Amino acid sequence: MESVKVKCPGTLSNLCCGFDILGLALEEPYDIIELRKTTTTDIRIHHLDAFDLPLDPKQNIAGVALQAMLDHLQSSQGFEIVIEKMIKPGSGIGSSAASAAGVVVAANILLGSPFSKKELIAFAMEGEVLASGSKHADNLAPCIYGGLVLIRDTATLDIVELNTPPIYISIVHPQIEIKTSYARSILPKEIALKTAVTQWANVAGLVSGFLQSDYDLISRSLLDVVAEPHRSKLIPGFEEVKLQSMAAGALGGGISGSGPSLFMLSKDRKTAELVTKEMKTVFDDLAIESKAYVSGVSKNGVEIIS
Amino acid sequence: MESVKVKCPGTLSNLCCGFDILGLALEEPYDIIELRKTTTTDIRIHHLDAFDLPLDPKQNIAGVALQAMLDHLQSSQGFEIVIEKMIKPGSGIGSSAASAAGVVVAANILLGSPFSKKELIAFAMEGEVLASGSKHADNLAPCIYGGLVLIRDTATLDIVELNTPPIYISIVHPQIEIKTSYARSILPKEIALKTAVTQWANVAGLVSGFLQSDYDLISRSLLDVVAEPHRSKLIPGFEEVKLQSMAAGALGGGISGSGPSLFMLSKDRKTAELVTKEMKTVFDDLAIESKAYVSGVSKNGVEIIS
Repeated sequence: MESVKVKCPGTLSNLCCGFDILGLALEEPYDIIELRKTTTTDIRIHHLDAFDLPLDPKQNIAGVALQAMLDHLQSSQGFEIVIEKMIKPGSGIGSSAASAAGVVVAANILLGSPFSKKELIAFAMEGEVLASGSKHADNLAPCIYGGLVLIRDTATLDIVELNTPPIYISIVHPQIEIKTSYARSILPKEIALKTAVTQWANVAGLVSGFLQSDYDLISRSLLDVVAEPHRSKLIPGFEEVKLQSMAAGALGGGISGSGPSLFMLSKDRKTAELVTKEMKTVFDDLAIESKAYVSGVSKNGVEIIS
Repeated sequence: MESVKVKCPGTLSNLCCGFDILGLALEEPYDIIELRKTTTTDIRIHHLDAFDLPLDPKQNIAGVALQAMLDHLQSSQGFEIVIEKMIKPGSGIGSSAASAAGVVVAANILLGSPFSKKELIAFAMEGEVLASGSKHADNLAPCIYGGLVLIRDTATLDIVELNTPPIYISIVHPQIEIKTSYARSILPKEIALKTAVTQWANVAGLVSGFLQSDYDLISRSLLDVVAEPHRSKLIPGFEEVKLQSMAAGALGGGISGSGPSLFMLSKDRKTAELVTKEMKTVFDDLAIESKAYVSGVSKNGVEIIS
């Protein structure tokens, strides 16, 4: 096999109380990456999108992730990476993870699948380091495994796949900019023990709700008393989006990743469509341009298209 | 029905990372409470044990819990409570909860079952307030529901029953005294966000492990980075107990409630027996007297004996 084209799903991380530990793979939006073996020894990158991302493989997330894999293999195989990015960088829907995960899954296929999913995450994390300065897997793990995943431990990459009942996601990306590093800097370094207990009670409720297909419990547990009180201030209309979404039948939701995108979960696609419409209307009323998605859960993560 | 005798299970609260939110009902040890309607209008209490607990119903946990129910009913029915306590007060195995839960379940039976389990917890919590000064349900909920339970929210008594695969518990109660109030006072009021994330990642892992019958995941998640580092210092031999228990095949464990009892979970009874023996030996070697139990999970909580 000389070339492969893969679909690289956007991902929702945090899921309210699941700050830094839960991630969910989305059907929409997604990137497309085509990877081709070349007869040279270098990595060449083309972008079919207009996001003006760096083409130097040392400065490009996909390039860095692929190089990490090749370094491990002590391989000098050359590659051409063609990226059609549809997940806007900085949207909070795992744009950098889609690049890093997509390219390592594609390369693994072209190289005869020498690596496990867990090993692929380790390579892709090098791309995340370039993107955000820290090793984190809460977008990469769902992107590579698909579905809902728990990252129990990042150091050992202890990834737990969690079954969910049918669930649909509304995502609205208001066109405002929030740097991940800034969204992280405004979080307190310490939190009250009482607050922490509330958060992990909700984490336990949310995980139980998913695994026991208990939508009411999912709804009651979709709370974030740690990050949301700080980060929601950066997003105009946040409270109104929540209010209108719940009124339209959403189970609950909050900030996707570190924002600015907001997400809501619903039991069925019809409700999710209604919720998305309500969410978008709030931003329209504030004269903030926004992009909206209604998505199912991507069960498989990165997938071969051709 | 004029009288009823119930078996009131001891309970394990916290379960390492599940600080303040998880509780498990035990087959051993347990108390026995006999409740009899009388023709008077007062509550009389007899203890068949030698723990020298107050017999004044206003000072006795069972008396206070029963009175809370009668006040709610505006009833002046008199009762005689005969308590045979086998769970030593202050052991960290839910002694006060067994008294409070047992008496309200028994009274509910004698009064024609007007109350739900959740309502019974609310009455029994008045007994816990007398015992510890705070409303908490992490021993009461498993005592009344049986099995493993999550207290997602104490204010609304949002109780979630969690299925577990077969699990056996080793408990060793070293005869040292730790006041619950002191064990609570030595905990920090604030914790690092990073520490909190580690704890709720393990909570998510532990809940997933139980619900998905994944013993390895249960074992990897049975960690407590919040309370144990502080409270374990109050228990001589703590690290050695852990070390020997793991070597003997335990999945993991820690402090039961706020101590001083220690618990370990195992996959089968034979391992739990071996683990219990190893735990007890550590205290024997330290010349600390201890009482040991090997227990299955009480599936039903408080049960009618006759």
